[in-house]
Amino acid sequence: MPEQRLRPKLKVRRIALDTGRENIAVISRHSRALRPEVFRGFSRVELTNSNGTRSMLATLLITDDDTLVDAEELGLAEPAFRRFAYPTGSLVSVTPAKPPESLEAVRSKILGHTLDAEDVTAIINDIAHFRYSDMEIAAFLVGSASFMTSSELLALTRAMAEAGTKLRWDRPIVADKHCIGGIPGNRTSMVVVPIVAAHGLTIPKTSSRAITSPAGTADTMEVLARVDIGIDEMREIVHAYHGCLVWGGRVNLSPADDILISVERPLGIDTREQMVASIMSKKLAAGATHLLIDIPSGPAAKVTTAIEAMRLRKLFEFVGDHFGIAVEVVTTDGREPVGRGIGPVLEARDVMAVLSNEPNAPRDLREKSLRLAAHLLEYDPKIRGGTGYARASELLDSGAALKQMQRIIDAQGPSNCNNDLGILTVDIRAAGDGVVESIDCLRLNRLARIAGAPIDKGAGILVLKKTGDRVEKDEPLYRIYACEHPEFELAAAAANAQSGYEIDGPLGPAASPQ
Amino acid sequence: MPEQRLRPKLKVRRIALDTGRENIAVISRHSRALRPEVFRGFSRVELTNSNGTRSMLATLLITDDDTLVDAEELGLAEPAFRRFAYPTGSLVSVTPAKPPESLEAVRSKILGHTLDAEDVTAIINDIAHFRYSDMEIAAFLVGSASFMTSSELLALTRAMAEAGTKLRWDRPIVADKHCIGGIPGNRTSMVVVPIVAAHGLTIPKTSSRAITSPAGTADTMEVLARVDIGIDEMREIVHAYHGCLVWGGRVNLSPADDILISVERPLGIDTREQMVASIMSKKLAAGATHLLIDIPSGPAAKVTTAIEAMRLRKLFEFVGDHFGIAVEVVTTDGREPVGRGIGPVLEARDVMAVLSNEPNAPRDLREKSLRLAAHLLEYDPKIRGGTGYARASELLDSGAALKQMQRIIDAQGPSNCNNDLGILTVDIRAAGDGVVESIDCLRLNRLARIAGAPIDKGAGILVLKKTGDRVEKDEPLYRIYACEHPEFELAAAAANAQSGYEIDGPLGPAASPQ
Repeated sequence: MPEQRLRPKLKVRRIALDTGRENIAVISRHSRALRPEVFRGFSRVELTNSNGTRSMLATLLITDDDTLVDAEELGLAEPAFRRFAYPTGSLVSVTPAKPPESLEAVRSKILGHTLDAEDVTAIINDIAHFRYSDMEIAAFLVGSASFMTSSELLALTRAMAEAGTKLRWDRPIVADKHCIGGIPGNRTSMVVVPIVAAHGLTIPKTSSRAITSPAGTADTMEVLARVDIGIDEMREIVHAYHGCLVWGGRVNLSPADDILISVERPLGIDTREQMVASIMSKKLAAGATHLLIDIPSGPAAKVTTAIEAMRLRKLFEFVGDHFGIAVEVVTTDGREPVGRGIGPVLEARDVMAVLSNEPNAPRDLREKSLRLAAHLLEYDPKIRGGTGYARASELLDSGAALKQMQRIIDAQGPSNCNNDLGILTVDIRAAGDGVVESIDCLRLNRLARIAGAPIDKGAGILVLKKTGDRVEKDEPLYRIYACEHPEFELAAAAANAQSGYEIDGPLGPAASPQ
Repeated sequence: MPEQRLRPKLKVRRIALDTGRENIAVISRHSRALRPEVFRGFSRVELTNSNGTRSMLATLLITDDDTLVDAEELGLAEPAFRRFAYPTGSLVSVTPAKPPESLEAVRSKILGHTLDAEDVTAIINDIAHFRYSDMEIAAFLVGSASFMTSSELLALTRAMAEAGTKLRWDRPIVADKHCIGGIPGNRTSMVVVPIVAAHGLTIPKTSSRAITSPAGTADTMEVLARVDIGIDEMREIVHAYHGCLVWGGRVNLSPADDILISVERPLGIDTREQMVASIMSKKLAAGATHLLIDIPSGPAAKVTTAIEAMRLRKLFEFVGDHFGIAVEVVTTDGREPVGRGIGPVLEARDVMAVLSNEPNAPRDLREKSLRLAAHLLEYDPKIRGGTGYARASELLDSGAALKQMQRIIDAQGPSNCNNDLGILTVDIRAAGDGVVESIDCLRLNRLARIAGAPIDKGAGILVLKKTGDRVEKDEPLYRIYACEHPEFELAAAAANAQSGYEIDGPLGPAASPQ
């Protein structure tokens, strides 16, 4: 390539700046080798190492601070430095980047055309390789949000599954479960996996960390055991104990999905098709053969009506059938938190109380977990139809599930994060007598997050009153736990401003406290 | 506000990092006052000064470099520091930002609903006040790209015009012209304005700088005179000489439009409705009463067919009628560059050659300018119908237009940028004998940009052969000018790889050079 030779070279410098997902390169305004204003118009640049074997797209920022990046250097912020994986001081050429060709397909989708499988694959590959800017990802997501055909949905699911690791288990039944999310404290996986594994069915569960919620299953499991576990180790654990509870990010299942989610969440767009493609791509990559989907339905849940739940169910079934995954969908009560704890340590306590059959263990978490486990156990041809629930109860009541959980915890090994419950606490109290009319799940999630969860494992909320409970004035509704002062005070102030509870008193329904 | 008191405070520090349009705040990973990982989930933060009188939304980056931002500081990158306008060292509180409420309307638009005028106004106000991230702006643009109703289009035009400065001229006829762009060298405004002003019609022309093209009219005019001129001074010049040619950015006409454009361009989405809303909001804000729109049509132009041109014309007329602006639309030849120069200095030379009636002045620029000026002059009730062209020619041929241009240049004063033509030149030559079949406008724009235009005023392309011209092998097709070595070599290599010219030789059409 004659162009290659002519390109000006700059020395790589590492910039201790965490720019999230996007590749950011920093260049001096006085750069001797090239002038940033000229490049600015192209918005993105392509970096190439000296022998032309490695290249990467990045967004360019310009600095006037020579101590940050001088005229002969090219600064790479942390994620870009890590991805480019080329040592400090090595020479790199920088050229205006052509936008990825697949953007043409995104533009045509925006204008109302339908994408074929080849277009979708090209888009997903470019996204998985960090060739799209956040803006461009947003354009693809929004362009696909207004409508997505069945074949686009299938192509998207397959392309995302193919873009990362694919696990294969060489067993006739590989069970998995997934909840579409949104309900605080809903840690059924940590009860279901040990029950199903104790029975002997294979259930290699990978979970996500929280993005905008106060805890993902991976965050909560990390209170009890290490979750950052590679593929080989995961395979050994599953072969020995039939199940595991690990973090999916390390295993690199459907990485394009993680990228899409990181843009979807802040934008707050989450269409049915995108949700189904996201979940099914992960399960396809994880090698699941039998999948149970939990759709909580309630006024502050992701799904608010029975019709919506049914449409979503049909979509899961359609995609499952196409890819040969036996999908079963259950609609559950999504009106209030499940269990009492919200936040990793508090949720882990609920889970262990259920597995240990403690008398005061939260009944709703126990019942829901048994019901889900029952569905999965019925996949076993040896189980007589209709006896799944009895078998699940037996495994839980006998302590077999607890023993299996302990084996899995031991196999995954101890995590080294601080797992103490927060010592800063405050009770949020009822403003008057009455009955708890409703609990706003979104609000409690946000309050637990402000209190520090999931970064502070011990931060969160302990729910003391549920819907239908009778309360007296000044009786505590829930307790906020925090580990650090600023978060504690922010969360307390926010909860006092808007608690998320509605109490139906003698004077009619009212938010509480007021 | 009780929450205010509790918020942790950090000291403002200026970070010499040009982050383009977006507000970026940088915080230490070891920040004592608050922990960045906790805030990260919220993606955006709100900064508030100590007495709560000023607040701003920003995107948060995290640093591990204490020399950049230490544990007690809050770094503000250049644009954020400038906008927050609060001195270094002053105390600022930082809280998780609630997304702007108007995003709810964006989400509903994405799902196919129609926005009312109130929604559109709220969105545009939030965008104009930098409350949207790039991702969110992209979501609005893409969500509006699939369809926009007539009332949405009118609401968008009005909201954008209202969000900035509004000029009023107190004259019965305030003429303006606008080209939808895309054609290199198309600097007709700089010929039309002096002709129309010489006649005595008011034509207060504001123009943009290039975003992705090698020159905007403001960039080219800056070769001859200062263009960074405030409202009061602009008013004086227009009152004295009937016209001006200034940069619209300084006058702050429809600032939300500038922000939308900065996201539209890199994404390459440019729907009819968005184009019309953008242009008409600027003209409405500028106080135009009579507007001429130039729509170049050609294979590499923004508009490629007569049907498209007509649909666009109807849309301009519809919006113009609604707001009481007399709009006239002309479709012009957009198949190849207008004039010979591409890039500020080269284009300014073409303009002055036409105004000075030099014998070798580009005929196409002269003819097109006369035709456009004729349309504008016919707005004058004193002009007899059909005599506009003759009057325009008279003003140009007699030197009256040149004299008027000189008055305007003198009134605007000299610019202090370097206006020398680039001394690094290379001729791009024909690969064989034949006739120039077509010239790719997009390609020439890109090559001129790579050569350094518009940052280097003297960089660009001098077109030596136009379509229909006969060429022999090795005869120069165009000359590249550059001011700096890296840009020169990049542009030369790119032109040799793909010239943008197609020569129809004895062996059939072929790209040249090959």
